[in-house]
Amino acid sequence: MVPPGELSVPPRLLMGPGPITVDPRVLRAMSAQLVGQFDPFMTATMNETMALYREVFRTANEQTFLVDGTSRAGIEAALVSLLEPGDRVLVPVFGRFGALLTEIAARCGAEVHTVEVPWGEVVRAEAVEEAVVRVRPKLVAVVQGDTSTTMCQPLAELGEICRRHDVLLYCDATASLGGNPFETDAWGIDVVTAGLQKCLGGPSGSAPITLSPRAAALIEGRTHVEAGIRADDDADRGTRIASNYLDLAQIMEYWGPRRLNHHTEAATMLYAARECARLLVEEGLDAAVARHDLHGRAMLAGVGGLGLQVFGDVAHKMTNVVAVHIPDGVPGEGVREALLTDFGIEIGTSFGPLHGRVWRIGTMGFNARRDAVLTTLAALEQVLRSYGVRVTGGGGVGAAREVYAS
Amino acid sequence: MVPPGELSVPPRLLMGPGPITVDPRVLRAMSAQLVGQFDPFMTATMNETMALYREVFRTANEQTFLVDGTSRAGIEAALVSLLEPGDRVLVPVFGRFGALLTEIAARCGAEVHTVEVPWGEVVRAEAVEEAVVRVRPKLVAVVQGDTSTTMCQPLAELGEICRRHDVLLYCDATASLGGNPFETDAWGIDVVTAGLQKCLGGPSGSAPITLSPRAAALIEGRTHVEAGIRADDDADRGTRIASNYLDLAQIMEYWGPRRLNHHTEAATMLYAARECARLLVEEGLDAAVARHDLHGRAMLAGVGGLGLQVFGDVAHKMTNVVAVHIPDGVPGEGVREALLTDFGIEIGTSFGPLHGRVWRIGTMGFNARRDAVLTTLAALEQVLRSYGVRVTGGGGVGAAREVYAS
Repeated sequence: MVPPGELSVPPRLLMGPGPITVDPRVLRAMSAQLVGQFDPFMTATMNETMALYREVFRTANEQTFLVDGTSRAGIEAALVSLLEPGDRVLVPVFGRFGALLTEIAARCGAEVHTVEVPWGEVVRAEAVEEAVVRVRPKLVAVVQGDTSTTMCQPLAELGEICRRHDVLLYCDATASLGGNPFETDAWGIDVVTAGLQKCLGGPSGSAPITLSPRAAALIEGRTHVEAGIRADDDADRGTRIASNYLDLAQIMEYWGPRRLNHHTEAATMLYAARECARLLVEEGLDAAVARHDLHGRAMLAGVGGLGLQVFGDVAHKMTNVVAVHIPDGVPGEGVREALLTDFGIEIGTSFGPLHGRVWRIGTMGFNARRDAVLTTLAALEQVLRSYGVRVTGGGGVGAAREVYAS
Repeated sequence: MVPPGELSVPPRLLMGPGPITVDPRVLRAMSAQLVGQFDPFMTATMNETMALYREVFRTANEQTFLVDGTSRAGIEAALVSLLEPGDRVLVPVFGRFGALLTEIAARCGAEVHTVEVPWGEVVRAEAVEEAVVRVRPKLVAVVQGDTSTTMCQPLAELGEICRRHDVLLYCDATASLGGNPFETDAWGIDVVTAGLQKCLGGPSGSAPITLSPRAAALIEGRTHVEAGIRADDDADRGTRIASNYLDLAQIMEYWGPRRLNHHTEAATMLYAARECARLLVEEGLDAAVARHDLHGRAMLAGVGGLGLQVFGDVAHKMTNVVAVHIPDGVPGEGVREALLTDFGIEIGTSFGPLHGRVWRIGTMGFNARRDAVLTTLAALEQVLRSYGVRVTGGGGVGAAREVYAS
């Protein structure tokens, strides 16, 4: 074959629900050369990255590291390592990513129970506690920010409930971490996983994770064996974790002082994850959340200024993404295509019950910026006008500017 | 915390068994900005990458794509998607990575049978056929190049045997692909997985995979369901694949024309994988194998010129790595440390029965180069001399030069 030419990526302003435009500092970090897997520099970089993510997760957990894969690999690593076949798990479901937790837990052989609410709402703590008492699960697994609905589930009370009933609490914070308040230790969350491609300003491909001492002990207690040696007779250690690649017991030994060889670390993604965390820690977690809050409010006001109706319970909206109803008579995909073709701007479509009904617009990571917000609103106004939508007054840009001025 | 400073990676010449120094073109490709997950450019890049890997794997298989994770993720994706609990699998084991296949297959619930030979040998085709007849497995799973021993298992006959007995054949070609002859279709191999961090000159973190039509059909036939919907009543489709993240049925739908959303593609690793394949296709697969052969022979002659004894069956050695016995009285780790500290060169240690007994020296990917070979030999000679080893004649560099001159 004649090989294709050099990669020539078209410029895009990624204002969907993620992935988003990567911070150029992260891209530069990713162009650094490799060192060996157990080089002292590699070991030091892994340790630095662990310390950085303790800050990002707001935790003292020793077991804070990266899973080599996308955020979904982190979710599955947590669930397959925590859950044994037959274990009961309770999942509050308020969107697509809650449903994903139920599917992964079911594949782990767990008995899955749910507390469901309509899309656009969050789950009340009382409903979760009632279900915990009824189901008596080993684990409650919940998403913080579900981009499918833009809802941000309050977690502090869930942590209290889980401690009170001696239940483990796992949270998928992929879409919310770094742009919404998150307190692993203060909220009593045992295991948290994330990704780089949302508020952390990086690319998909690395999943930061943190585990409380009791979660780590539970996982370490499960049978794990050296390659090729069966340990079926070691019955009191629980069943073997069904995955080797996502076996957190082995991955903890790889990141821990024993440095036992597991997979070959994806060093470039480690470099990316380190730089994402370094950006956040330099800015300060509170400042980063405040920045996402500011630009999220500006975008919310802006879409209002364009006359668009916001979907869902705005009081529980994530800072970093807003869903708006596609106006009657306007072709949702036509607008997205015009934004991409004429302005190089991407906004999101949606899935499930919202498919074809809402657009999702993100303001996160590197793109939680005033110029990104105003440019997106200006372009969207032009495209809406071309479909006959009347925009009055200062429009989207004017409304967003008011937020910035206040 | 005070965040650590900018990443300052020390210069290293990585001459171990992998990961190796990344080709600078691949690093540059990885610094490219992202586009959205379903952007026309993204889709085109995914399709180009599929076509490139068909060339690299020498296959017409439509199902040729990337698994988002390290090479181990590709291995597990293949085994967990092919094997159902109770299935019999036969693994010819001639080193550590064969043992890894047995461990992953056991975690999939398979009944694992092996044909084992001492480290430093390959498995005879007759022994595999005898075991196939006895065990009647669904799948034979084998490593081509096992870096733990440097052995390269002949595969053409295994493919014939598997076709003759209607058994699927899976091969882990991580360590060998691109540097040793490999023929997916001509040899009749159903599923092959690889990684970027060996002869392909890239970083760890993406696993190219190819599946024959019959392997793809088998996997597509297994129950796969949309998130949140149980399909336990769909009994004739086989058991559900135990992993969501590594469910090849779903990943094929993501890379296929339906573009069903699965995980968020690790676009930077896609860029890397594309550039690795582009380098190989530009050079030509045969030329790349010949290059690995040349520099592998030069290194082999060079270590001989240093008076070092080569481990294992040299007639079946991979082109791209050599194992040499650590001379009596010489501290293996001391030599490695001196090479790293004084020369910035990394060579490999070993595991299992060879731990502390051999060094492993790689000549692969970007480092299958004359200057890399000669520099490594010159530095190793200096370090060996400092431990009292006598080097006579032209030494390692002289012996390697003779290979280059011939």
